[in-house]
Amino acid sequence: MRLSSRGQVDPFIVMDVMEAARAAEEAGRRIIHMEVGQPSTPAPALARAALERSLDDPLGYTVGLGLPELRRGIAGLYKRWYGVELDPERVVVTAGSSGAFVLAFSALFDAGDKVALGEPGYPSYRQILRAMSVTPVAMPTSAENRFQPVPSDIPDGVQGMIVASPGNPSGTMLGREDLGALIRAAAERDISFVSDEIYHGLQYGAPAVSALEISDDVYVINSFSKYFSMTGWRIGWMVVPEAHVRTVERLAQNLFICPTHASQVAALAALDATEECEANRAVYTENRRLMLEGLPAAGFTKIAPPDGAFYVYADVSDLTSDSGAFAREILDKAGVAVTPGLDFDPVRGGTTLRFSYAASTPEIAEAIERLKAFMAAR
Amino acid sequence: MRLSSRGQVDPFIVMDVMEAARAAEEAGRRIIHMEVGQPSTPAPALARAALERSLDDPLGYTVGLGLPELRRGIAGLYKRWYGVELDPERVVVTAGSSGAFVLAFSALFDAGDKVALGEPGYPSYRQILRAMSVTPVAMPTSAENRFQPVPSDIPDGVQGMIVASPGNPSGTMLGREDLGALIRAAAERDISFVSDEIYHGLQYGAPAVSALEISDDVYVINSFSKYFSMTGWRIGWMVVPEAHVRTVERLAQNLFICPTHASQVAALAALDATEECEANRAVYTENRRLMLEGLPAAGFTKIAPPDGAFYVYADVSDLTSDSGAFAREILDKAGVAVTPGLDFDPVRGGTTLRFSYAASTPEIAEAIERLKAFMAAR
Repeated sequence: MRLSSRGQVDPFIVMDVMEAARAAEEAGRRIIHMEVGQPSTPAPALARAALERSLDDPLGYTVGLGLPELRRGIAGLYKRWYGVELDPERVVVTAGSSGAFVLAFSALFDAGDKVALGEPGYPSYRQILRAMSVTPVAMPTSAENRFQPVPSDIPDGVQGMIVASPGNPSGTMLGREDLGALIRAAAERDISFVSDEIYHGLQYGAPAVSALEISDDVYVINSFSKYFSMTGWRIGWMVVPEAHVRTVERLAQNLFICPTHASQVAALAALDATEECEANRAVYTENRRLMLEGLPAAGFTKIAPPDGAFYVYADVSDLTSDSGAFAREILDKAGVAVTPGLDFDPVRGGTTLRFSYAASTPEIAEAIERLKAFMAAR
Repeated sequence: MRLSSRGQVDPFIVMDVMEAARAAEEAGRRIIHMEVGQPSTPAPALARAALERSLDDPLGYTVGLGLPELRRGIAGLYKRWYGVELDPERVVVTAGSSGAFVLAFSALFDAGDKVALGEPGYPSYRQILRAMSVTPVAMPTSAENRFQPVPSDIPDGVQGMIVASPGNPSGTMLGREDLGALIRAAAERDISFVSDEIYHGLQYGAPAVSALEISDDVYVINSFSKYFSMTGWRIGWMVVPEAHVRTVERLAQNLFICPTHASQVAALAALDATEECEANRAVYTENRRLMLEGLPAAGFTKIAPPDGAFYVYADVSDLTSDSGAFAREILDKAGVAVTPGLDFDPVRGGTTLRFSYAASTPEIAEAIERLKAFMAAR
C-alpha cells in the first residue's frame, strides 16, 4: 500500500531531545523538563470529583456539538472573562484545540487553498493544513513586532490566516488595537480569520483580548488544556459565526461523533475551579519572574518578556546556528531539556530556543542554576 | 467568511427521528430507542475502577501513538481472539474509530483520490472522505451477497476500498475465503485496503475473521466502543503495516497530539473485562433471537439474519418507498425510534430500515409488541 503525499508531514525536532531525555532518565539521571508545553498539575480537583461522581453513568455518545450545559458554561466564561454576551449555540465543544483546528480547516478551506501563519508559531498548524491538502504560507514576524504579525505582513492570495495571542513560542500578546487591525485587514480582503486563544487566562499583566470582543465573523479556538490544566483530557472548544454552526455540526458528527464524554463532565466542573486555576497561575507568575531574571544572568540575553502562556523564546544566535545541536548539548551537560526553535520557525529557528516554565517553581529554580553553570563552563 | 465546498457534508437523516423522539419524550411519552448504535451499558466496572484509581495522577499528554502498555494489550487481544502474533509497534491508539479513519485517510489518500465503499454502509466513511477532498465511490451490494462486496464489485480507478465485517447496518460478516478474495483483488490492483472491524467480538455464530489473519498489508480499524461498551470514551485503535508507522505517528502527533489519557487508562483495564463483555453479548444474543422471531411476526419479513453487531437491516419495500416518512410514522404511532435506510444507502435506502437491538431485553421485547400492534393496525 502506498502512502499519500499529504501524509508526509515533518517530524517534531524536539522528539530527538525528548528521546535523549528519556534515555538519560532511564540511565538514572534527573532531567528537568523545559521542553514540554503542559502543566505538571492534574485537572482541577472539582473536575476530578465531578467525573468520579459520574463514573457509574453510561457516559455514551453526547450530541456532536457537546453537552448543552457545557456549551452554556463556556458561553458564560466569555461574559466573565471579556464581558461578551455569547449565544451558546455558537460554541462547539471539541477534542482539544487539535480537534477544533481539524473542524475549522474542513469547514473553511478547500484543497489547494492557502492559509497564512505567523512564524515562529505552533508547528501543528502547518502540518494539519498540509494533511488536509491546504498550503501553509509563512508570515515571518519580527522581534520588533514582538513576534506577532501586522497587517502589512499578510500575503496576497491567501484564503485564511491564523493568529495566536498569547503566542507559542513567544508568549507575546496582541493588544486590542493590533488585533482589531488584523481582523479588519482580513475582513477587507475576504480572508477567514482564525484566532487561537488557547493560552488565554495565563497572562501576567493586562488580560488577553479575544477576537470575539472585536468581531463575530471569526473562528475562535480555545481549550481546557492550559489554564484549566487538562492537556491529556483532549477537551477544547471553538466559537464560530452563527451561519457556520450547522456545517460545523455535521462535520463534527462525522469526523468525531462527539468529544470524550468523561472529559466534558470534568471540563464543566473545571469552569468553577477558579481558585485552583489562579493558584496555578500564581506559580507560573513566580516561575516567569525567575526566568526573566535568571536567563539573562545565565547568558541568554536576547529574550522578549512574555505577556502570557508559559514560554520564553530566546534568540541564541550569539551562541549557535544549530539550535538542535545546542539543545542536545544543554540536555547532555546541564540535564535540562529545551525545545529547538526549528519546530516553530523552519527558516530562522536554527538560532532560537523555547524554554517552558510550566514545571514547579523549585524545578525552574534548579534549571536556572544548572543553565548558569552550563553557560559559565562553556 | 466563506464556508468550503468540502465542508458541505450531508446531514444524518436519522437526526429528524432523534429530534422528534426527544420532543415526544419531553411531552411525557416513553420512546424505545432502536435508532442508536451504542450499548446502554456503561464502561466495564474494571475500566471505571482503574480510572478512579488514576484520577489524582496528572493524566497529561501521552505519546502520540498511545500508552505503550495499551498498545501491548491490544496486540495481545489479536493473539487471544485470532491467534495472530502482532508487533505492538504496529498498533496506533486513536480517538475512537473516527480518529482512526481520519488518520488512515490522511496517510493513504491524496485530494482527488477515489475510495470504494460497500453500500449500504456506515455513512461517515463518505462524509469523512469528502471532508478530506477524497471522492467516495459506491459499491452497491446485494441481498444475495448478504450486503457485502465481492471482487467483481470493485470499481476501476480507485486508490482504496473500505470493507466492514460485521457490517453496519446489515450485521452480516465476510467469511475467511470471501475476505481473502477481496484482499487479494485489492492487492493485485494496488488498492489500499481498510478493514473496519469495530463490531468484532459481537458475533452470534462463527467468530469474525480479521483482515490481519490474511495479510499484513492492510489497515485494520477497531474500537473499544461496541464490544467493550465504551462509545463516549472515544478510544479505538488501528493496526498499520510496519512501513507506515512513522508516517501515521507524525500525523497523529499533529492532528490529535494523543488520544484522551483517561480513556486509555480505562481501555487498558477493559481488556481484562471479559466476563462483563461476554455478559453484554449474552444480552444481545437473546435480543437478536427476539428480533428474528418478532420482526417477521410483526410483518417485517425481508430481513437478513445478522451474524454480528446489534442491528437488523430490513427491506420494507413492500411497505413504503419513503423510509424517512415511515420511520416518523413508526415513532409517532408505536413510540419506537428506528433509523431510515437513507443514511446507509443514499440510492436504495428509501425502502429499508435499521433496527438496533443494543437496548435491554425487556425494552426489545416491548418494542416488538409495539411494532406488532402498529403493523396490525396499519
